[in-house]
Amino acid sequence: MKSGNTIHVEVHFTPTSAGEESLTGKNVIVIDVLRSASSILVALTNGAREIIPVGDMESAYKVFSKLTREVTLRCGERNGKMIEGFDLGNSPLSYTEEKVKGKSIVMLTTNGTAAIVKARYANNLVVASFLNLTSVVNLIKSWQSDVTIVCSGQDNRFSLEDTICAGKIVAELTKDNDAFSLDDGARAAVTLDKSFGGNILKMMKHSDHGKALVEIGFEEDLKFCSNIDSFNGVPVLANGVVRLNNEQQTPVLKRAS
Amino acid sequence: MKSGNTIHVEVHFTPTSAGEESLTGKNVIVIDVLRSASSILVALTNGAREIIPVGDMESAYKVFSKLTREVTLRCGERNGKMIEGFDLGNSPLSYTEEKVKGKSIVMLTTNGTAAIVKARYANNLVVASFLNLTSVVNLIKSWQSDVTIVCSGQDNRFSLEDTICAGKIVAELTKDNDAFSLDDGARAAVTLDKSFGGNILKMMKHSDHGKALVEIGFEEDLKFCSNIDSFNGVPVLANGVVRLNNEQQTPVLKRAS
Repeated sequence: MKSGNTIHVEVHFTPTSAGEESLTGKNVIVIDVLRSASSILVALTNGAREIIPVGDMESAYKVFSKLTREVTLRCGERNGKMIEGFDLGNSPLSYTEEKVKGKSIVMLTTNGTAAIVKARYANNLVVASFLNLTSVVNLIKSWQSDVTIVCSGQDNRFSLEDTICAGKIVAELTKDNDAFSLDDGARAAVTLDKSFGGNILKMMKHSDHGKALVEIGFEEDLKFCSNIDSFNGVPVLANGVVRLNNEQQTPVLKRAS
Repeated sequence: MKSGNTIHVEVHFTPTSAGEESLTGKNVIVIDVLRSASSILVALTNGAREIIPVGDMESAYKVFSKLTREVTLRCGERNGKMIEGFDLGNSPLSYTEEKVKGKSIVMLTTNGTAAIVKARYANNLVVASFLNLTSVVNLIKSWQSDVTIVCSGQDNRFSLEDTICAGKIVAELTKDNDAFSLDDGARAAVTLDKSFGGNILKMMKHSDHGKALVEIGFEEDLKFCSNIDSFNGVPVLANGVVRLNNEQQTPVLKRAS
């Protein structure tokens, strides 16, 4: 921890509550439990070369035009479903080694990748979910510096599952340590975790986003995304692409000639 | 309650999470505990003719130009302090009968009036704070219809005091009644009220916005704004102006000839 200084932790419940300029130069954790952050982690763990997050369809097509089709996957969702003409949707279960190994993945999702793009000028930008909770907390601890947690939410709205994930990170970070100051959002997230975070799958089955996903056939995704610490990689953004934190030195994206 | 139907209650923690179009035609409760909603209630109770909420400085000056100066008060704040050249700031204690009686009050505040303006196409728009909690709940109950609660927050960010006020409204509304369905925000607000809502003044003294107001000398405002049900009027918006709900039939704003 910063010697003698208080470390400030703030939690935004939606990306809209954090201005792009307020994230610039900060240590930012972007959470999108259902499902971008989970899918990104699975894809990278399964050998994807990199994730190129994009914030809107316009940007997606600009990036597509610069990449060799055979080493690229076009991935993402609108209203939870795979975008027409894309290769994969946003189900982490679809990001198998067979599909993703060695590929550059251009990813466009309603909440998660839009939040990552918004925070692209952060000093550190880490992508978090329940799947890599402890690894994310350990990385944050190593910074010994202020942290801004941005929940991706759902369509700019508060989502319980992202908030509970934020609450668990803050609780773990500040456990037995009074060197931290928390903003209203961080205090609320910790409190909500105490009430709702005991059974993550149950909480997600009753959350707005969870219910919507079950309705369109993705109940298995909820189960998969509720497994705390089932992975230990940490996706980080550098030079516009997301890779696991121990692989940042690998070459950047291969462009079409 | 609507016979046989479930009544849906949703809570937005900031105005940014609610699109203007998503509020159109809805029954909207705008909460701004510190301090617009409290000031509006005090001003109207003390005999102000009407409040004309504006969302930005540009709109404020447009409205000023249409009103006779001697019957108008220019009120509002930026960074918590009275705007230069205005007549009053945003402290409810400053809205005395002597100052406001018979006056049309043009009000510009960072969070509250901006939220009201955003929700101006609501079917019903009610302004709520701790001061008129029970009266607001009783009015909502009389509608027997879906409700959207919008917390004004602070600079587009989550604020604990508005959320606790929302939680108390939802808790009161749904008490001993299972005809309601709650979104993630409403469920979280109720839970946060249980944790933080026992001592409102203490909660506000530790909230981000509360601390900022104490720092610039407004601790008395916190005390005043924490008094649950010290008033029983309900400010409602109709035809662009806010009046107490039992006075909607009085004439609208007097324009300069």
